[in-house]
Amino acid sequence: MNFLIASVSSEPSIDHAPFILSGVLLSLVVIYLASKIGGEISNRLGLPPVLGELLAGVIVGVSALKLLTFPESGSDGSDSVIMWLLQTTLGLPASEVSAVFTQVSDVVLLLSELGVIILLFEIGLESDLKQLLGVGAQAVVVAVIGVVLPFAAGTAGLIFLFGMAPIPAIFAGAALTATSIGITSRVLSELGKLTSKEGQIILGAAVTDDVLGIIVLAIVASLAKTGTVDLGNVIILIISAASFLVGALLLGQLVNKLYVSVATNLKTRGEIITPAFIFAFAMAYLGNAIHLEAILGSFTAGLILDESDERNELQKQVVPVADLLVPIFFVTVGAKTNIGVLNPLIPVNREGLIIAAFLIVVAIVGKVATGLGAFGQPGINRWAIGVGMIPRGEVGLVFAGIGSSSGVLSESLNAAIVIMVIITTFIAPPLLRVAFGISPDLESKELKTEVTKES
Amino acid sequence: MNFLIASVSSEPSIDHAPFILSGVLLSLVVIYLASKIGGEISNRLGLPPVLGELLAGVIVGVSALKLLTFPESGSDGSDSVIMWLLQTTLGLPASEVSAVFTQVSDVVLLLSELGVIILLFEIGLESDLKQLLGVGAQAVVVAVIGVVLPFAAGTAGLIFLFGMAPIPAIFAGAALTATSIGITSRVLSELGKLTSKEGQIILGAAVTDDVLGIIVLAIVASLAKTGTVDLGNVIILIISAASFLVGALLLGQLVNKLYVSVATNLKTRGEIITPAFIFAFAMAYLGNAIHLEAILGSFTAGLILDESDERNELQKQVVPVADLLVPIFFVTVGAKTNIGVLNPLIPVNREGLIIAAFLIVVAIVGKVATGLGAFGQPGINRWAIGVGMIPRGEVGLVFAGIGSSSGVLSESLNAAIVIMVIITTFIAPPLLRVAFGISPDLESKELKTEVTKES
Repeated sequence: MNFLIASVSSEPSIDHAPFILSGVLLSLVVIYLASKIGGEISNRLGLPPVLGELLAGVIVGVSALKLLTFPESGSDGSDSVIMWLLQTTLGLPASEVSAVFTQVSDVVLLLSELGVIILLFEIGLESDLKQLLGVGAQAVVVAVIGVVLPFAAGTAGLIFLFGMAPIPAIFAGAALTATSIGITSRVLSELGKLTSKEGQIILGAAVTDDVLGIIVLAIVASLAKTGTVDLGNVIILIISAASFLVGALLLGQLVNKLYVSVATNLKTRGEIITPAFIFAFAMAYLGNAIHLEAILGSFTAGLILDESDERNELQKQVVPVADLLVPIFFVTVGAKTNIGVLNPLIPVNREGLIIAAFLIVVAIVGKVATGLGAFGQPGINRWAIGVGMIPRGEVGLVFAGIGSSSGVLSESLNAAIVIMVIITTFIAPPLLRVAFGISPDLESKELKTEVTKES
Repeated sequence: MNFLIASVSSEPSIDHAPFILSGVLLSLVVIYLASKIGGEISNRLGLPPVLGELLAGVIVGVSALKLLTFPESGSDGSDSVIMWLLQTTLGLPASEVSAVFTQVSDVVLLLSELGVIILLFEIGLESDLKQLLGVGAQAVVVAVIGVVLPFAAGTAGLIFLFGMAPIPAIFAGAALTATSIGITSRVLSELGKLTSKEGQIILGAAVTDDVLGIIVLAIVASLAKTGTVDLGNVIILIISAASFLVGALLLGQLVNKLYVSVATNLKTRGEIITPAFIFAFAMAYLGNAIHLEAILGSFTAGLILDESDERNELQKQVVPVADLLVPIFFVTVGAKTNIGVLNPLIPVNREGLIIAAFLIVVAIVGKVATGLGAFGQPGINRWAIGVGMIPRGEVGLVFAGIGSSSGVLSESLNAAIVIMVIITTFIAPPLLRVAFGISPDLESKELKTEVTKES
């Protein structure tokens, strides 16, 4: 097969195509094996699967096994196990390793970009705007505090305590704003607290956080592209991000009706999902075209497709597609993170470690404080609300992934953010148990009650 | 975003990554729009959707609109509508168009390779080996005649009548061997003849044809890579293809049990489909590694996953993934085909046209003759069996796609094969109605009976 054309400026002596296809296939096998093994171990330890997928990525990546490495971490492919396999089994000449390695990495990284686009599309589909408006003012106040406080404290701390440049400090601060709606809702449901007053406020705030977080990310990533923080520019970006979202939601009713009518009238296979792909990818392109982020577009596309029979079926059909693409994103984020730069035995690493510790403290304190914002509810468990907002999960990883690939974050700051995501995701489930006053024994009883309730 | 690394030997002045992502997103939007519009029109005309997807690909491709063009058809991106959009909306500098165009095309073509791997995995899943063994000897005889006759007549005709070199002649001959199980079974079911004796023989023969066709393709594509036809080589290839398939099927029982036990024991999302991806992609790599074809591996992987609750669920979950990737394959095959080379008004094109006519005649006569192989069944409708084997559909396109990308087929021979696939797929449904003696009026009545039967 001769599908792939070699790089423009060098005429290759041999055809790279079969090597690139095999390299991509092997990378996918490594990614899926890592994500499943990591996810399952994590799940059996009572932790969110995404944590295991990320850690498995760290293990197969540049930090340890080097099964999955990328040119941006300084590799030329000579240390890549997959390239060695291609040399051994397919006869890839040593002289071509570096070129094939770059081409395989390009494809894997683009697949991981499609993965994060689909991930945010799915999160958008799951976020119910109506439910959010129902929970009302408290959730919004909790969410806004949970975005502003960690962002301000994190950014200011990095600039004034650590003397960091504004752009990376703002990026790291922004990474502190996320709340993982997926992890939060799963832990709440396991504790039987999903329908409690606290649970509803946490969920509403987490959805609002997603919306605010995506806007913050779009703005920060755009700042990173220009490289300077100019107040006029920031205002233009906030306005364009907000108008993109608000405009899309205003047109949403119309688009949603159009989608339903197209989906019901199509008579060939893919009638539900193909129009949704067209919409999500076109919106992702639009997000890019207005100099924000592709994921802002796909997230909005998911939000717009409103409750309908078609939407419910769509949500089901998106799952296997997300299972194909999303692990590529999680595992590559882990694989690209060089945790060696935080090895405490090496003296130069100590500042990175102190920064990581600082980020973790701000991440926890900044979210726990949000419980104070739950006004007008006497007797409510404010501590539980705050703790429920702690896990950063997949949304925090989106920040880390985009930050590292835009070249804004130094290797150690990127590693510090990934560690922050890991720790906050790791401690939330046990802390939430404590906050709700649930002992492990009680919990298994509660769990049974919940299961009985649901069945 | 800075995911994509520029080509190895030239240091780019600007970051290509956002342009490449946007270019891929726009290409996908064009591909899905084309495949849906083409498929739906085709369906409403009573024709197989794949025909419309292919023709829509021809229309958006190099032959007409040039919305989707590729470097291998001689384009440098300057005539690409998508590159023009990137220049207009994202500010892609003219100097970078050619490099970005190549990188976008590389990714789209690799996605289309993943598409054909998933397509063959799905066909493998749908092919029931047990059912095939049940229909027995007649189906096998029909299938073998239907592979040998068109292959021999096509290859010999191209070499001796048209003086073609052996390798392209063999490749074109091999493209004549396919039978589209999908199209055949759909037309039979529409005519209410799926469960007739003729229908069962046609289906059994079509499944056998898939298996034989994949082996023939693997061998022919491998010959194309070495560029020479050496009898010893051919024998080695036949043995390795057959042992790959037989070995895999012998181990299949074991692998299938392993798959079911893994799928039932996994507790995190993707428990059914992720192990299947790992298996299919690893087998595709193996197919490549033993110098055959990746699709031989994924097809075998599909065949191996045997009847079980998990397999049935898997078949459902593969559908959206195939809807994501397979249209990329069909549309790009159409888009890369320059039907302008068969324009009869230009005198040099006439030989290509005569070759196309020759292929069409061999394709039809070679399959109709297979009906004679249905022995030992007095009163059976041999004419209907032969006609049922005519449509080449998606399997024929796999031959054309791999042939054109391996560089074996000249532009006009490639176009002739695509035209052959279009014509055979186009004429099968009406011819089958005639063969079964069904008038359009009767047909709609029969259809109702069938629908009632099924419900």
